[in-house]
Amino acid sequence: MMSRVLSLRHVLMVSLALNVGLILRVAYEGEIQRAERSLHGGLCFEDGEKNRGGWTSMADFSKDKAHLSQKNLLLKSPSSSTVRTEAQDGGEIVINLDHGDPTMYERFWQQMGDKTTVVISGWQSISYFSDVRNLCWFLEPEFAKAIIRLHKVVGNAITEDRHIVVGTGSTQLFQAALYALSPPNASEPMNVVSAAPYYSSYPLVTDFLKSGLYKWAGDAHAFTKDEPYIELVTSPNNPDGFTRQPVVNGNDGILIHDFAYYWPQYTPISFPADHDLMLFTVSKSMGHAGTRLGWALVKDREVAKKMTKFIELNTIGVSQDSQLRAAKILQAVSDSYDHASKPEGGELFFDYSHNQMAKRWKQLREAVKQSRLFSLPDFPLGLCSFSGQTFELQPAFAWLKCEREIEDCESFLRSHKILTRGGKHFGVSSEYVRISMLERDKMFDLFTERLSKILS
Amino acid sequence: MMSRVLSLRHVLMVSLALNVGLILRVAYEGEIQRAERSLHGGLCFEDGEKNRGGWTSMADFSKDKAHLSQKNLLLKSPSSSTVRTEAQDGGEIVINLDHGDPTMYERFWQQMGDKTTVVISGWQSISYFSDVRNLCWFLEPEFAKAIIRLHKVVGNAITEDRHIVVGTGSTQLFQAALYALSPPNASEPMNVVSAAPYYSSYPLVTDFLKSGLYKWAGDAHAFTKDEPYIELVTSPNNPDGFTRQPVVNGNDGILIHDFAYYWPQYTPISFPADHDLMLFTVSKSMGHAGTRLGWALVKDREVAKKMTKFIELNTIGVSQDSQLRAAKILQAVSDSYDHASKPEGGELFFDYSHNQMAKRWKQLREAVKQSRLFSLPDFPLGLCSFSGQTFELQPAFAWLKCEREIEDCESFLRSHKILTRGGKHFGVSSEYVRISMLERDKMFDLFTERLSKILS
Repeated sequence: MMSRVLSLRHVLMVSLALNVGLILRVAYEGEIQRAERSLHGGLCFEDGEKNRGGWTSMADFSKDKAHLSQKNLLLKSPSSSTVRTEAQDGGEIVINLDHGDPTMYERFWQQMGDKTTVVISGWQSISYFSDVRNLCWFLEPEFAKAIIRLHKVVGNAITEDRHIVVGTGSTQLFQAALYALSPPNASEPMNVVSAAPYYSSYPLVTDFLKSGLYKWAGDAHAFTKDEPYIELVTSPNNPDGFTRQPVVNGNDGILIHDFAYYWPQYTPISFPADHDLMLFTVSKSMGHAGTRLGWALVKDREVAKKMTKFIELNTIGVSQDSQLRAAKILQAVSDSYDHASKPEGGELFFDYSHNQMAKRWKQLREAVKQSRLFSLPDFPLGLCSFSGQTFELQPAFAWLKCEREIEDCESFLRSHKILTRGGKHFGVSSEYVRISMLERDKMFDLFTERLSKILS
Repeated sequence: MMSRVLSLRHVLMVSLALNVGLILRVAYEGEIQRAERSLHGGLCFEDGEKNRGGWTSMADFSKDKAHLSQKNLLLKSPSSSTVRTEAQDGGEIVINLDHGDPTMYERFWQQMGDKTTVVISGWQSISYFSDVRNLCWFLEPEFAKAIIRLHKVVGNAITEDRHIVVGTGSTQLFQAALYALSPPNASEPMNVVSAAPYYSSYPLVTDFLKSGLYKWAGDAHAFTKDEPYIELVTSPNNPDGFTRQPVVNGNDGILIHDFAYYWPQYTPISFPADHDLMLFTVSKSMGHAGTRLGWALVKDREVAKKMTKFIELNTIGVSQDSQLRAAKILQAVSDSYDHASKPEGGELFFDYSHNQMAKRWKQLREAVKQSRLFSLPDFPLGLCSFSGQTFELQPAFAWLKCEREIEDCESFLRSHKILTRGGKHFGVSSEYVRISMLERDKMFDLFTERLSKILS
């Protein structure tokens, strides 16, 4: 018994030490990293041409860190209350909203305390195999259960008679789907299209290995070839947030539905989606981008097998640790709604995130109105079957247009030290930019404050 | 204070519940899964042609589960002492040694108890970014530190003036290296070669996307083209265990050194490896295959950048949860050697694993001697700078040859319900098979017992 108590105490000490270490790291690195990242225009993932060869260098970082320290412009960590306001810093802080890094959710999970803490022993996850009875043999059964349950709770997708394929983020699953849906011995690579504005990563990820199986064929609106094609339907769409349907009229088309944002914080849930191949991701639903987890719901058994084969050849499966952790997080969210009452000392996840997004969109629309230089899309109202509320879409990205003959909106905002991603990366005009709505509060507040004061 | 105590108790309850759940799962699934896996000839990763289209089906699994239950031939979990011996089961159990699943290490980590338990809070790993100051921006700094320290402790690789790139297993890093080392705009794909017998995954992983950047060009011994090439040097080699040097004599060659097995349980460490691009993996060093983690030590900055770019486009980084966990495991191993005394109630990791491998190789050589149907390679003695001991190579795989005119060794052993991987997958004769030496004790014992009794 004594040794058991000691052992438990040991686990706790380990846990506490880890937490203390991590809090210190967040506090320190939050300062340095965010300032640096902002200054350099961010790192490159999801990026288009501008960053293709444009890696930040460590030497440059070091130089700029010194520079930043001198100017005392370092941003504080999210837990700090000492972040300067726009007025205090005089518009000097670089605000990076180029990536969709979902740091907004950090605060919610902090408030949840230990409810979603995961503990993994040294002897777990030794084998490559998670469940050899499953077609997707590297899918942790607990994660599979949690996915099915969450979809039932939210009502955003049909899971019956589907195979679940887990991936290292939905980016890997997107490639797995291309591999699975392209004929192995065709004379020409399969055409891959999506209606512009399309997610900026699609062309890059499709073409980076110059595959003989598939190739990027551009804007789906412009695709008129009498050839087989795969159409990516992202709904709500990244970057512009609208609900989407396929646009190509061909007969030889295969559809992939990217439902990364089909969650009640971003859009009214109007029906449980029921398509052949649907992609989801932990990053945008729960905010845990660092777990690198996504899942596909796949109707056809052979397609699910080939997707599993892709992941087997590409990475021999998917982190079991992250799957165990995500299982716990998804179950906790489902639990909180099953109990139908607020968990102790906190809000329900989708209520919290929905309210945050609503507040941010209101704040952004006010800033845009004040500036008179920009415009935003208008979204229709919709009834959400999950919450019972009627509301407008409130996307994870704002699709902002520069008015008054500003031709390059990204450069214009960059001159005001606001980093965004220009329309050309999404296959459309440079008058548009995509802006992440998922940054931490302080940064988002700085952004709207600065935007509202940009004079025409 | 009270709430703090409650909160701690909560963590403990969570931890215990998780452990109990997992132990039950291991116990139950251990039975079913291992029997099923064996019966079906295993799943396909690493596999060659035989399994390319040969997925096991869930329906088949269910059928066979019933069948197995009826015959009462289910294998027990590793913690159970009720596994039947070869004599008891009458040679009926299918012994699957096709994959290099490192389950042998499970027992060691169980004995370590809580020393390598990791605790991850719900608010950690929200951001995509682990360290924006690092060229490899998704590398967790703690994991990087642990890698450098472990190499120093073991003395198997130079880490100074190297970039560390983390990958979802060394399989992803291998592809990242091909991407980084192949010219982006060449008229022909880069030749990728390795000396036969070569790792069976190399040709499959190189060619599965029909990349225009690189292509499998076969046995390095046979490569005589006056064209650029990448040569994979795996040392100790998978499948045959020998120490390797490059074999192509060309001038346009670039080398990738795969050091997955350059650890003191498998081979005497004769020098700290000092090559341009070296690959390592957590799976084969520590046994945690389920974490899906590997790392590359890369001399050239531009190559490291391009490898990082590949992983960004392929999976937008690597599980942070697994990196935090692996950091803890690697540090614990290094700690135990720094303290230079045995940890409480257990052995030192490399001592334990070295002794296990020595015992298994002795046991296998005795069985082979008894059968008189097979032969094994002879290995030279070497002085290990890490342990100070002189010993023979004791590889993670046995490269067994069938003698006496058995032409297809894999089929021959399969008729005795021993599943292995035949020589043709490694680019050589079917007289050879590769056999995993890393299975759990009971299975390995059954294997040597059965092998010794196969009559000529």
